[in-house]
Amino acid sequence: MKIAVIGTGVVGRTLAARLAELEHSVAVGTRDVSATHSRMDSDGGVSFADWLAAHPDISLLDFAAAGRFGEVVVNATNGAASMQALIGVGADNLAGKVLIDVANPLDFSQGFPPTLLLKDNDSLAEEIQRGFPETRVVKTLNTVTADVMARPDLVGDGGTSVFLSGDDPAAKAVATDLLRDMGWRDIIDLGDITTARGPEMYLPLWLRVMAAQGTALFNVHVVR
Amino acid sequence: MKIAVIGTGVVGRTLAARLAELEHSVAVGTRDVSATHSRMDSDGGVSFADWLAAHPDISLLDFAAAGRFGEVVVNATNGAASMQALIGVGADNLAGKVLIDVANPLDFSQGFPPTLLLKDNDSLAEEIQRGFPETRVVKTLNTVTADVMARPDLVGDGGTSVFLSGDDPAAKAVATDLLRDMGWRDIIDLGDITTARGPEMYLPLWLRVMAAQGTALFNVHVVR
Repeated sequence: MKIAVIGTGVVGRTLAARLAELEHSVAVGTRDVSATHSRMDSDGGVSFADWLAAHPDISLLDFAAAGRFGEVVVNATNGAASMQALIGVGADNLAGKVLIDVANPLDFSQGFPPTLLLKDNDSLAEEIQRGFPETRVVKTLNTVTADVMARPDLVGDGGTSVFLSGDDPAAKAVATDLLRDMGWRDIIDLGDITTARGPEMYLPLWLRVMAAQGTALFNVHVVR
Repeated sequence: MKIAVIGTGVVGRTLAARLAELEHSVAVGTRDVSATHSRMDSDGGVSFADWLAAHPDISLLDFAAAGRFGEVVVNATNGAASMQALIGVGADNLAGKVLIDVANPLDFSQGFPPTLLLKDNDSLAEEIQRGFPETRVVKTLNTVTADVMARPDLVGDGGTSVFLSGDDPAAKAVATDLLRDMGWRDIIDLGDITTARGPEMYLPLWLRVMAAQGTALFNVHVVR
């Protein structure tokens, strides 16, 4: 499947590399291709150009070209910048497609821990769905760190839980297939796109558990 | 230990009965003792008087008398009414004591799912700590349904996780002992009282998982 991953940070790189490893055809979308090529990245000290050189099967495209390329589009941008990035991808390019939103609308302007930009009676996923009504938005994976998104077996025996929210059952089936390919087994469908408020508002707890434990390599298992 | 449980609903009854079973000396605190005696309760259809008759070792006291009685006080009131109830218990009666806050500040005025009355840059636990600065507030247990609070072995093998937030290490040690008595093994100390924002903001996810699964008998296990 042709998958466009929007965002060049740790989340975008990690998901792009994993999806390519799973033999999908992957392009990473960025605002300015030449700027991204020349940018040194603080995330782990690996520049995007070096990362891309190590992944010759992945292409780097501008937002609009990535939008045209992808049959499925993954929003792996900073949540505070997601709407602007997706406008760059283009409503026409996103129309009818499955958009998997893994971002968190975090506000780091007051330091750590960040607060949520949208909460309780709204969510980033809903904002995206309202902004792109012809796109089929699915919220998932925002409740774990990038490495765990791509390889759930990094925590415990790989049987921890991931959540799914969206209005379109067929889009959720596409997302579920990709999640299973990456190794997810306990996938909890919460319901329509408004249920994304739950996983997004979980972030303040996730951040404090991370701080208390000193590692982001954890996840919750919903035990019945 | 003398424990005052403030609140006569399902949470208060369940915790009071469990703590009495564990051989603590337990009083339930209510605003108006005679009104509570005569009230029919919609929770499970058992009136408080019938419940109390079935638990002869538990006494019913007004808020202030319960506050004087308890060496440890448990806030098991509706979160929207907690501050008013604790004012009734009395700052003098609460001074120096451990107050275990298990309530959630939920707003049901717009129907289900409820929204949070306090969030993100505040929490009910912090509001209580600010309102009663001489009291040592510990937030815990608000992330599970009443039956699971009292008997964590009702879900899975009993090894799921519970969170602890508070400024006073000795108060958290008292709460930890009570949690262990009730059967909790995985107790995660998140840090100071501001970390209660995490477990309180988890409620929107808890509510949606409950709706998706059709049961409140679940809990998360934090898997490293």
